[in-house]
Amino acid sequence: MPHPKIVALSGGVGASRFLNGLTAAVPPESVTAIVNTGDDRNFYGVHVAPDIDIVTYTLAGAIDSQKGFGLAGDSFELVERLSALGHEVWFRLGDADYANCLHRTLQLAEGAGLAEVVDAMRCEFSVATRILPMSEDPCPTIVVLGGGKRVHFEEYLVRDGAPGDVEAVDLSAAGRATPAPGVLDAIASADLLLVCPSNPVVSIAPILAIPGVREAIEASSAPRVAISPIVGGAPIKGPATPLMRGVGIEVSALGVAENYREWIDAIVIDNRDADLAVAIEGLGLAVAVTDTIMTDRDASRRLAECTLALGERVAGARG
Amino acid sequence: MPHPKIVALSGGVGASRFLNGLTAAVPPESVTAIVNTGDDRNFYGVHVAPDIDIVTYTLAGAIDSQKGFGLAGDSFELVERLSALGHEVWFRLGDADYANCLHRTLQLAEGAGLAEVVDAMRCEFSVATRILPMSEDPCPTIVVLGGGKRVHFEEYLVRDGAPGDVEAVDLSAAGRATPAPGVLDAIASADLLLVCPSNPVVSIAPILAIPGVREAIEASSAPRVAISPIVGGAPIKGPATPLMRGVGIEVSALGVAENYREWIDAIVIDNRDADLAVAIEGLGLAVAVTDTIMTDRDASRRLAECTLALGERVAGARG
Repeated sequence: MPHPKIVALSGGVGASRFLNGLTAAVPPESVTAIVNTGDDRNFYGVHVAPDIDIVTYTLAGAIDSQKGFGLAGDSFELVERLSALGHEVWFRLGDADYANCLHRTLQLAEGAGLAEVVDAMRCEFSVATRILPMSEDPCPTIVVLGGGKRVHFEEYLVRDGAPGDVEAVDLSAAGRATPAPGVLDAIASADLLLVCPSNPVVSIAPILAIPGVREAIEASSAPRVAISPIVGGAPIKGPATPLMRGVGIEVSALGVAENYREWIDAIVIDNRDADLAVAIEGLGLAVAVTDTIMTDRDASRRLAECTLALGERVAGARG
Repeated sequence: MPHPKIVALSGGVGASRFLNGLTAAVPPESVTAIVNTGDDRNFYGVHVAPDIDIVTYTLAGAIDSQKGFGLAGDSFELVERLSALGHEVWFRLGDADYANCLHRTLQLAEGAGLAEVVDAMRCEFSVATRILPMSEDPCPTIVVLGGGKRVHFEEYLVRDGAPGDVEAVDLSAAGRATPAPGVLDAIASADLLLVCPSNPVVSIAPILAIPGVREAIEASSAPRVAISPIVGGAPIKGPATPLMRGVGIEVSALGVAENYREWIDAIVIDNRDADLAVAIEGLGLAVAVTDTIMTDRDASRRLAECTLALGERVAGARG
């Protein structure tokens, strides 16, 4: 009997660490990651897909784990040269990373679809887990700041250092996009649907904004289990605080649970948030409490095992 | 009194060596090179302009003089990476060279004209000589081989190794192009017009094919002096033999003179071709005979001085 099929909605750093543990706990080929492409942007003439590449590089063991993105041991000659020629190079793309993005760009220019290009790249990296972009259409996530200033998410995060005055997040491009080939089928045939510990506003919400995705998740009979990216009232990493506040989500595991409650069945929260479990159960969600800090692959695997157990509990409760 | 203004029609390697000597003999800022762009092509997503870059790099002292193109000391990581990802990398563009081409591509994408981009790059390289692309329009030179097979000039030269079965050279794209800003003005205001020792068929003919250029040269009252790229019945370097034969030009200094005779006044030929001088004079052209082999910058300067003297002789004969 084949292993249950697991589909995980995924952002970048946090998700990739979780997936790295999940694929230690289950056969990697039984997992499909549906990855946010709202961060994608053209830099230096090439199609950069930050979350796709973070997931691919992490699962390949090639990630620069200090930074959480990029390739370990990469050089930065190209951005240095472009800088010397007068270009803004706040997005420091490494040379080997650039080559991969150029490869993608050339394939897209030749008419290939993003999904097949991403799939070929993960195979190139000997990654057994299936990696699916949420959409092949441009879906830029736009952060709206004080005074109505609109910036691309990468500008917000990397160039501007994640300022606090977020007024809204505009996902309207995702709202006009089509799911990438395979996305709706993967969701429909999943035996377990997971939501990785990613930013709810700029990693998970863009995936949900693609027409048809949320409906497919709601229609699924598989257990749907999220892992809270918020621990002790703050994200482990990244700009979740101003972004969640900006769109009116409480920066807590409870806030995440409230945000996801209509389309998930259960959520894993951190030991430090154990006091929130009752309130979350009051929303109608099953809860597991564990250590969610992924300090290494073993810790990620333990979190994945707890998540899988929660999924089984949900399935069991349904009888 | 300002130095006489010199305009030189230019291909790549041979022309750049001649220009390097010319700018040792006269103030570099008095020289404008109008450079063939028929070899230009997109490689790896960037706009490669081989002749423009050879001239720029040579005058900057940055050329890889062993190869005659590219930057001295450049690395080749990007093409190696693309090769590993399955791309054909027969055009081995160096990493720093790629950065320059990417810089050009990004500027063009932002709406800059090729002429201003080229001018900014030569300034970046502290080159005092003005470098003008012949046109800002795509002007691919297409070589027609046996059986009617059509290949871009770079495919012919670099990928295919300059096969002998040339049937024709198609310059029709150049024939539909517009001269780059400054080209016709430079020719009209030149005190001396030179034709560098470049391939007549794929370096000089494309420039002449741009509508208005030949007419401007014919209308000029400046002495017009060429240097033969053919010595002893063969080119010093490059694929001139099959290309000249393919379009019906005799591969000799006399063949070059016959090809140029309608729009030049004089030609410099090599000592080894001294026996052709009478026949060339019979075409109505003034002739100087000297050592045209540019083994170093001094040799290039001596050739340039001989060329300048021939120009003065033409002017003097007109009285």
